[in-house]
Amino acid sequence: MGFTAAVAGASGYAGGEVLRLLLGHPEIEIGALTAGGNAGSRLGALQPHLVPLADHVLQETTADTLAGHDVVFLALPHGRSAAIAERLGESTVVVDCGADFRLADPDAWQRFYGSPHAGTWPYGLPELPGARERLRGARRVAVPGCYPTAGTLALFPALADGLVEPDVVIVAASGTSGAGKAPKPHLLGSEVMGSATAYGVGGAHRHNPEFTQNLSAVAGAPVTVSFTPVLVPMPRGILATCTAPVRPGTTAAAVREAYRRRLADEPFVHLLPEGTWPATSMTLGANTALVQVAVDEAAGRLVAVAAIDNLTKGTAGGAVQSANLALGLPETSGLPVSAVAP
Amino acid sequence: MGFTAAVAGASGYAGGEVLRLLLGHPEIEIGALTAGGNAGSRLGALQPHLVPLADHVLQETTADTLAGHDVVFLALPHGRSAAIAERLGESTVVVDCGADFRLADPDAWQRFYGSPHAGTWPYGLPELPGARERLRGARRVAVPGCYPTAGTLALFPALADGLVEPDVVIVAASGTSGAGKAPKPHLLGSEVMGSATAYGVGGAHRHNPEFTQNLSAVAGAPVTVSFTPVLVPMPRGILATCTAPVRPGTTAAAVREAYRRRLADEPFVHLLPEGTWPATSMTLGANTALVQVAVDEAAGRLVAVAAIDNLTKGTAGGAVQSANLALGLPETSGLPVSAVAP
Amino acid sequence: MGFTAAVAGASGYAGGEVLRLLLGHPEIEIGALTAGGNAGSRLGALQPHLVPLADHVLQETTADTLAGHDVVFLALPHGRSAAIAERLGESTVVVDCGADFRLADPDAWQRFYGSPHAGTWPYGLPELPGARERLRGARRVAVPGCYPTAGTLALFPALADGLVEPDVVIVAASGTSGAGKAPKPHLLGSEVMGSATAYGVGGAHRHNPEFTQNLSAVAGAPVTVSFTPVLVPMPRGILATCTAPVRPGTTAAAVREAYRRRLADEPFVHLLPEGTWPATSMTLGANTALVQVAVDEAAGRLVAVAAIDNLTKGTAGGAVQSANLALGLPETSGLPVSAVAP
Amino acid sequence: MGFTAAVAGASGYAGGEVLRLLLGHPEIEIGALTAGGNAGSRLGALQPHLVPLADHVLQETTADTLAGHDVVFLALPHGRSAAIAERLGESTVVVDCGADFRLADPDAWQRFYGSPHAGTWPYGLPELPGARERLRGARRVAVPGCYPTAGTLALFPALADGLVEPDVVIVAASGTSGAGKAPKPHLLGSEVMGSATAYGVGGAHRHNPEFTQNLSAVAGAPVTVSFTPVLVPMPRGILATCTAPVRPGTTAAAVREAYRRRLADEPFVHLLPEGTWPATSMTLGANTALVQVAVDEAAGRLVAVAAIDNLTKGTAGGAVQSANLALGLPETSGLPVSAVAP
Repeated sequence: MGFTAAVAGASGYAGGEVLRLLLGHPEIEIGALTAGGNAGSRLGALQPHLVPLADHVLQETTADTLAGHDVVFLALPHGRSAAIAERLGESTVVVDCGADFRLADPDAWQRFYGSPHAGTWPYGLPELPGARERLRGARRVAVPGCYPTAGTLALFPALADGLVEPDVVIVAASGTSGAGKAPKPHLLGSEVMGSATAYGVGGAHRHNPEFTQNLSAVAGAPVTVSFTPVLVPMPRGILATCTAPVRPGTTAAAVREAYRRRLADEPFVHLLPEGTWPATSMTLGANTALVQVAVDEAAGRLVAVAAIDNLTKGTAGGAVQSANLALGLPETSGLPVSAVAP
Repeated sequence: MGFTAAVAGASGYAGGEVLRLLLGHPEIEIGALTAGGNAGSRLGALQPHLVPLADHVLQETTADTLAGHDVVFLALPHGRSAAIAERLGESTVVVDCGADFRLADPDAWQRFYGSPHAGTWPYGLPELPGARERLRGARRVAVPGCYPTAGTLALFPALADGLVEPDVVIVAASGTSGAGKAPKPHLLGSEVMGSATAYGVGGAHRHNPEFTQNLSAVAGAPVTVSFTPVLVPMPRGILATCTAPVRPGTTAAAVREAYRRRLADEPFVHLLPEGTWPATSMTLGANTALVQVAVDEAAGRLVAVAAIDNLTKGTAGGAVQSANLALGLPETSGLPVSAVAP
Repeated sequence: MGFTAAVAGASGYAGGEVLRLLLGHPEIEIGALTAGGNAGSRLGALQPHLVPLADHVLQETTADTLAGHDVVFLALPHGRSAAIAERLGESTVVVDCGADFRLADPDAWQRFYGSPHAGTWPYGLPELPGARERLRGARRVAVPGCYPTAGTLALFPALADGLVEPDVVIVAASGTSGAGKAPKPHLLGSEVMGSATAYGVGGAHRHNPEFTQNLSAVAGAPVTVSFTPVLVPMPRGILATCTAPVRPGTTAAAVREAYRRRLADEPFVHLLPEGTWPATSMTLGANTALVQVAVDEAAGRLVAVAAIDNLTKGTAGGAVQSANLALGLPETSGLPVSAVAP
Repeated sequence: MGFTAAVAGASGYAGGEVLRLLLGHPEIEIGALTAGGNAGSRLGALQPHLVPLADHVLQETTADTLAGHDVVFLALPHGRSAAIAERLGESTVVVDCGADFRLADPDAWQRFYGSPHAGTWPYGLPELPGARERLRGARRVAVPGCYPTAGTLALFPALADGLVEPDVVIVAASGTSGAGKAPKPHLLGSEVMGSATAYGVGGAHRHNPEFTQNLSAVAGAPVTVSFTPVLVPMPRGILATCTAPVRPGTTAAAVREAYRRRLADEPFVHLLPEGTWPATSMTLGANTALVQVAVDEAAGRLVAVAAIDNLTKGTAGGAVQSANLALGLPETSGLPVSAVAP
């Protein structure tokens, strides 16, 4: 084991998934586990599925308890990461699973989060053009949001190659774990089972500016994004259905070739064989994103679909993938590529 | 009881739901129940939830067994309805839950179904402008598809009032019962639970031409439709997320007013209070469609969402609603408006 | 409409289900709706599936707001019903969906609820020997718990006929709505989907003494009960698997005959044809209990299984059924017998 | 990599899970994958979640294609294993995930399977007294059934220590994957979601004689078993609720101590802290069995509950665990102990 890791927010879903992955990581040893209200509890009482860590006791989330590790994973409510990161020093790799450092535009942050902008860290989606290089050896990483992970991976080849107009519509079905572990009436099993519902409609979801930022960067020009998240009855998984008008002259073959070329060497993002469409079950617990794309000739639109596990590739797996790059480890270390299915 | 009804395809999901509704219908008495391969079985062996009909025995689906009723509901595989309807005579109201008579364009039929076009019957979506009048006293009714029911109800006020460009994107999450009762590997519980998956992507779904027909008629001009269905883990329900660019000058207030005005008198379609978004669970077992709409200023798009129960308003409830009109009964007879929730 | 009803606790699951049933009741008109913390809200914001009541405003739960109706349904946290009932007067039929008046034994109450015993009201399970007569014209009714409804209906024919030893084991799978609408971490959709878990094991569940009381009364002798509830991922439904040693000489035919005879005239409890086992989906939204029974010769045991909808026959449907008897209405008024399936 | 493995029945659920585990096994390399009707297909078309094996092509299941590996996992319909095993020779470790070689009693086999008895192999439940030793170096292993795995692990400490009477009742809730991938109407998602149903009631399930065999062996005397499986809406997981009368003098402390002692050194079976009850979600994808036990003083019964993943510890994980012992590898090689949750 070359490295040690601390996890802040170890009692939540993101923190628990970071731990699950670290338990299988050959190069990273688990150190301090911290929490807010749950500090003092056995991890076994809160994350009973992490059997080997059952007797670890959660400490308070403070810079002191987190200090002294090679990498610190933060899985905290937004607004909390800056103060901690500041005190951890530049020698520590800090990987923030939250939103605080994702956006480059302070106005966009202010508009969607209503608080001062903490700053901008290297964005942890290595598959984006140029991103992998920026993440190698980075000391700070902002892990992408789960929806932007899925939607960006589905659309970037088309936008990067200029195959579609910069006016995209994304409708993404998500499991409930993305909403976290804090109990709210609309997240009760009784409410979510048997039901699908849209929320954050009309541009209100906080992942909106992150989509705009990602896709505009890839396209090299402003991209208009209409994003609607839909809550569906499953614990995990995001299926992002993304569409944009094809540019004149864009053929289905050109689209396929662009996706093939841009995803060919990716260890975690796979273009499925023609005619096979991704299902979230194909990614459960894996750091994999599965992508398929088609051109609807009658509608003049490209339709790209991506499936991920929101807690793995969409959060904790993305975090570990970036941490691997930051620490100089093989990018794929400790990251499952096969899903648990059915 | 003024009228008698026969149900062909009584062993399937659509036929079963027609029966459930007819059991509560004050003016229609249930007569012959027919099936294909299940003829000869007790209904209780196939539809055990319909306790009062448990001892009814299914007859063969033939024009003879169906004849002599005031109304015949056909819930058959496509291509089967024309021959039966022909022999039932014009005095019988025939309500076809299948696709055979939905499309006006024989070419579109041929392209999507690959068989000769059977014809075109009055379209059973009374909420569309002019439709209710055409259905009153009709002897033939083509029940809309489940997806087109949801998407059309979500979009028609905006298109009819010219508030949006005729270029719409519809992504609709659906429960599994829309795929019917014939066992297929990808519909196994083990496969669908915990998974969301898109299918019929890129304009391939057979409901595509029905969407185009409905929305173009409402808009009074050709409407381009991009439609993607998404299978999600619930037995029933469709949540259609629909978006189109707002026309210059369209305000959020104008949009709201258009929806309010066009839906105000509808007994089964309701615009929810601002800020409340429909969930399919709010419609389970009810003939209700719940609609909400917003304008995304940044994206320049209207987003409308509709929730229905695919088997009730999306199939059997729509069928009974149209049958009521055809028979001269109150449109709402026998149709539940409250859902079973949670 | 001959009668008026008030519903206390109209924002919860039990209260909502009472309202759903009353909306379809031909003889009872809905009057005051009351709540605790939700008083002042539109019902539409809390029970959006009850479309016709969307604009009703919840009043405070007090004897004053509930007074003046023919029947008052109480769906309150335990310990609250006595004070209200006292002030409603003897002319009002009070139907308590809670536990307060179910138990005859004050010690059992004290042991399981830790508070003073409020008293004992006629027990609202009309199917039990003698119960129907006691409920006709009653002014007070204690609605049975959902688990005891299922388990008692499954076992009483065998115990009443002395076919089994008075030593029963009941393991009942339940949907999540039985746990109510108050958000708790272990009831989140993320937690319950994909998971089955036992709770209240070892005799700790509060329905234990109710089981003992019911089954002992039926058997005419003390019955030992081992009861384990199991939470499974569905919103509604209880499947009770009940077993007891058969007495020497008991044949499978005698068992079948006892069940047939004792259930033959019941409008809501049905013995399924041999070889068909009940599923909770066959009862969703219906006031039906479906029962099947077998004798395991090798194990020397009778196994009886009952399926109900915990909110309908298990709570609100049972409440309305008893209210019908109390008010002198046909027992079946307003009570659905067909389920919403699939 | 010291060893090579072939998997027969690689297109089914059990075979797929064996492959998922072997992909993470440090000492076993995957060789031939075979199937029946699916021979010739890419594995990616059938097991899309096993991304690294997507391009492997399934061969015919024959002794020839399976020969030449160190270990062969058979995941075949029952009745098929004997002929293949015979031809593989004694140097090959053959691990049969099916039922063919589980039972010692030819009559029991004949009664429950209706075909000639193939024989008896060492039983792959290393946690049973003496079993681990028999499995070390074995060349043939019969993997236990999923229900017997759960129920036996829950009960054996109590029976082995003579704390309970030899008369047990087991009611086990199971996910749907145990029923396999062959499409049948009652296994459709539309049917299983929202529903719980018992089957094989009254001693009819084929796992019955396996339970009797296991528990009698542990108790050292015939044990009477009443077993009822209950299908619940989740893809994976078994929760076995098991109860038996406590013997005179058995205290709760003695029970706890027996479980603690007998499970203390087990790498995959864990007694949870008092008051915590197992949930199947705590075991998803892990080779873990979680156990809890209580004594119901009023009922005079011990209640033990075990949760497993039916495809992991209940089938494929158990198979790999036994293969590890047979091959002389560490028992825990390649077996996940943390679950994917939520």
